[in-house]
Amino acid sequence: MKFARFRYNHSEQYGVVTEEGIKPVTGNIFDEWEFTEDLHSFENVEILAPVSPGKVIGIGANYVASKGELPDTVPDLPVFFFKPNSSIIGPEQDVVIPDEIEKIKFESELAVVIGKEAKNLSKDQVLDHVFGYTLGNDVTAPQFFHEDGHWTVGKSFDTFTPLGPVVETELDPLKVRVRAEVNGEVKQNSPTELMIVPLKEMIAYLSTVMTLNPGDVILTGSPLGAHFVKEGDVIECKVDEIGTLRNTTVNSQTLVSS
Amino acid sequence: MKFARFRYNHSEQYGVVTEEGIKPVTGNIFDEWEFTEDLHSFENVEILAPVSPGKVIGIGANYVASKGELPDTVPDLPVFFFKPNSSIIGPEQDVVIPDEIEKIKFESELAVVIGKEAKNLSKDQVLDHVFGYTLGNDVTAPQFFHEDGHWTVGKSFDTFTPLGPVVETELDPLKVRVRAEVNGEVKQNSPTELMIVPLKEMIAYLSTVMTLNPGDVILTGSPLGAHFVKEGDVIECKVDEIGTLRNTTVNSQTLVSS
Repeated sequence: MKFARFRYNHSEQYGVVTEEGIKPVTGNIFDEWEFTEDLHSFENVEILAPVSPGKVIGIGANYVASKGELPDTVPDLPVFFFKPNSSIIGPEQDVVIPDEIEKIKFESELAVVIGKEAKNLSKDQVLDHVFGYTLGNDVTAPQFFHEDGHWTVGKSFDTFTPLGPVVETELDPLKVRVRAEVNGEVKQNSPTELMIVPLKEMIAYLSTVMTLNPGDVILTGSPLGAHFVKEGDVIECKVDEIGTLRNTTVNSQTLVSS
Repeated sequence: MKFARFRYNHSEQYGVVTEEGIKPVTGNIFDEWEFTEDLHSFENVEILAPVSPGKVIGIGANYVASKGELPDTVPDLPVFFFKPNSSIIGPEQDVVIPDEIEKIKFESELAVVIGKEAKNLSKDQVLDHVFGYTLGNDVTAPQFFHEDGHWTVGKSFDTFTPLGPVVETELDPLKVRVRAEVNGEVKQNSPTELMIVPLKEMIAYLSTVMTLNPGDVILTGSPLGAHFVKEGDVIECKVDEIGTLRNTTVNSQTLVSS
């Protein structure tokens, strides 16, 4: 089932995406919900980022090029980072390149949406606590990485975390391919089995450190092939079973003068 | 004025701390609010962390020992990090030492609470966007710092961000001393004028990167003197004009067996 969050008539709602259009739901999608009588056609709604997470957690360089390169053991201490909720945008919204720089990096990622409070999970318990999966673009300005290794500023600019278009609840995350196209040209295309820290291990580890709550998002890392983009580039992050998250880059200067 | 968040009769409310007790308020403390007719004595309520922030931002090593050591210019790119909202606890709650380690570090800090949405502020606009000030203890397990410089895991364990006891709205943040005592012994005691990146510059810089929202918390760094504590130690973070944030450390093992 594909859940979308959308704006209709100035109000924000959740709905389920069907062939006929979006069927709004009431209640809490992570708990109890039911369909309303309504049905909206896609052209009448604005699709928003599908969740409003308490936290967004990313993992550093998490893909190898081929299965032969996978390490025998998972790293004891993976590189994790947070992205602030203020950096989240939805599909079709512009990614703004900060002042003083001309290019930024895109990173297409499978994004896990937590469904049930999770603390100290074993690997085998993880999928029971997942609500579903969406796409994330972990936009990054490495020019703002600190020389001592801190990525915070370079990952945190407003608009740097596109999420969407929907949360697919019936996906096998271990059997999909994460792809990206820039201006229609394929740049990333890897199966999730090339993750260095696999999805279940990643979330089990995080849950030993911090309580994960419904709506929290974990960006599971980006395949090889991410690179810089500049003003006017169209980035499409894709997982066939979920859809396409498309955003265009603009300069902040252009934004001010337009 | 001192705002506190508290639990009374299973409901969470805001109130103003007076000599007679806590006077509950209704409305939005960042916007419009008014007193109710009630008055609670302190022994009848449980004081909670005073805010429930969308983001908590910390700054790395931000104090010198004496004014003569202050640099002539502020660093171009300060070290910032996020702490997750899942790590926040209130006064008198226990700080839990993670499994596998025996000691953690405390850091007493002046914490800024944002009151109005803030983006691209100049230094002179900063204080107009501040709601008030509380105390934060930036608890840290450096054993979980990544060798490449990432502090995320070491800063993010549940209970690692005590906040409180109140938000003081009438403070001059440039004229207070940040102190800490462990088991009654003074460990930190510095005026905020020893900050390397001063408070206004820090928040102005952050606002050029990300939108700051009402309730967001900025931990402004810790004076020299922070060190390790072990099970059973009582940490008191103090700013005279705000109050004392007291928490005791416990081992997670002790917690399980008790």
